[in-house]
Amino acid sequence: MTGSLTIVGLGPGAAQWLTPAAQVALDAASDLVGYGPYLDRIPAREGQTKHGSDNRVEIARAERALRLAASGKSVVVVSGGDPGVFAMAAAVFEALEAGEPGWRDLAITVEPGITAMLAAAARAGAPLGGDFCAISLSDNLKPWEVVTARLEAALAADFVICLYNPISKARPWQLGKALELAAQRQAAETPVIFARAVGRPDESLRVLTLPQAIAAAGTADMATLVMIGASATRLIVRAGQNPYVYTPRSVTKSPCATSQGRT
Amino acid sequence: MTGSLTIVGLGPGAAQWLTPAAQVALDAASDLVGYGPYLDRIPAREGQTKHGSDNRVEIARAERALRLAASGKSVVVVSGGDPGVFAMAAAVFEALEAGEPGWRDLAITVEPGITAMLAAAARAGAPLGGDFCAISLSDNLKPWEVVTARLEAALAADFVICLYNPISKARPWQLGKALELAAQRQAAETPVIFARAVGRPDESLRVLTLPQAIAAAGTADMATLVMIGASATRLIVRAGQNPYVYTPRSVTKSPCATSQGRT
Repeated sequence: MTGSLTIVGLGPGAAQWLTPAAQVALDAASDLVGYGPYLDRIPAREGQTKHGSDNRVEIARAERALRLAASGKSVVVVSGGDPGVFAMAAAVFEALEAGEPGWRDLAITVEPGITAMLAAAARAGAPLGGDFCAISLSDNLKPWEVVTARLEAALAADFVICLYNPISKARPWQLGKALELAAQRQAAETPVIFARAVGRPDESLRVLTLPQAIAAAGTADMATLVMIGASATRLIVRAGQNPYVYTPRSVTKSPCATSQGRT
Repeated sequence: MTGSLTIVGLGPGAAQWLTPAAQVALDAASDLVGYGPYLDRIPAREGQTKHGSDNRVEIARAERALRLAASGKSVVVVSGGDPGVFAMAAAVFEALEAGEPGWRDLAITVEPGITAMLAAAARAGAPLGGDFCAISLSDNLKPWEVVTARLEAALAADFVICLYNPISKARPWQLGKALELAAQRQAAETPVIFARAVGRPDESLRVLTLPQAIAAAGTADMATLVMIGASATRLIVRAGQNPYVYTPRSVTKSPCATSQGRT
């Protein structure tokens, strides 16, 4: 087989965060496969075919890309953020494993990208300065009990918690529930960041307390990355601007401690 | 104050993963502050001063950068990977909070970068396809009991676990101990990735079982990112090459299950 398949992360939206390697892969592609809004971010180019699809058809999209590559095309699967983080890369390997044996001979490459939590953290300060975890709140692909068990373990371990896919029309209550679980463990003053569309023109960043975040849960959407601080996560207040949020690198308390403050 | 301070992530080593925004910040700097080997990766430019320092003097380095910015310079603090992930951003905000009140008026920006786990995951396939966590194994800044409590919580939650700073001359046994903890919870076949210097000429990637990883722990170093699979993380075997490693997006088992296999 002479085709190739590269799974590319566009980063969180701004061209300034698209890596040169991802740009090279996009330029070299004969065929671009992806969710429509991601493909729309790539300028049309003669000789290059875009194959758009709806959201939530990842496996069908991955199979289409593998079939195109097997037919000799230079295929790029386009993903937002980093393709390996709650995005297209895992779907491609699922389709590869379940698909035609010959597909395993294809040259498959993953190009990393800036994932949403890194962009959100950069805008807020340095909230990921300590140990952290990333959890998709979507229960389309895993039972809600698994989500809550992971949230509880992460809270007990005093990780900073990044929540991807926090809310959608079909999943309206999960984010509020997750924040309520956090409020049972963490101090009310624990910073919570709602970072929406970071790097895009409609970017917004809100730094809230846990009770404020619970009240505001309905204002988040699928473009929002929610970050819940650890017990050591703190604010540096500034006049007339959002405070900086950061997590000190040092930990002196046990992860079971729940009191707030510098450690 | 007219100076500025930007904390920039160079990514894991290759220029192809340096974002355009990070490059713009580097080009605009009058002064570059950082750990010597990172500064060495940036071509010298007339009118630009490099202020190198040793490793493990992060706060002194951060204070120096803030002082330079307060004196009117356009300062860039250079970090490997992403500056917010076990790197310089948190140190700068610690120094800012403890430092001169006037420093809070400085324009401080963080430029995200490709952090090591994203590059390692891209090379391996899609091991971060499910929920995951990132833990620094260094106990310079936190007690070892905190590290083990977090590891145990992460294993109980069945996260994919990324270990930063896995081993050094001063900390020779921590990685082996962490892998032994994993072996108590996870099946022996659980894939473990040792990804060293990804994106640099001396890059290497090893995909091991847990017992193999325990035996090989002493071969890791500070340039190695270690990734321990979740129970669902699996291999796609290929002739004559490393297998692909990926974590399916779906979870059907409870996070307490320890058996191996696709879920």
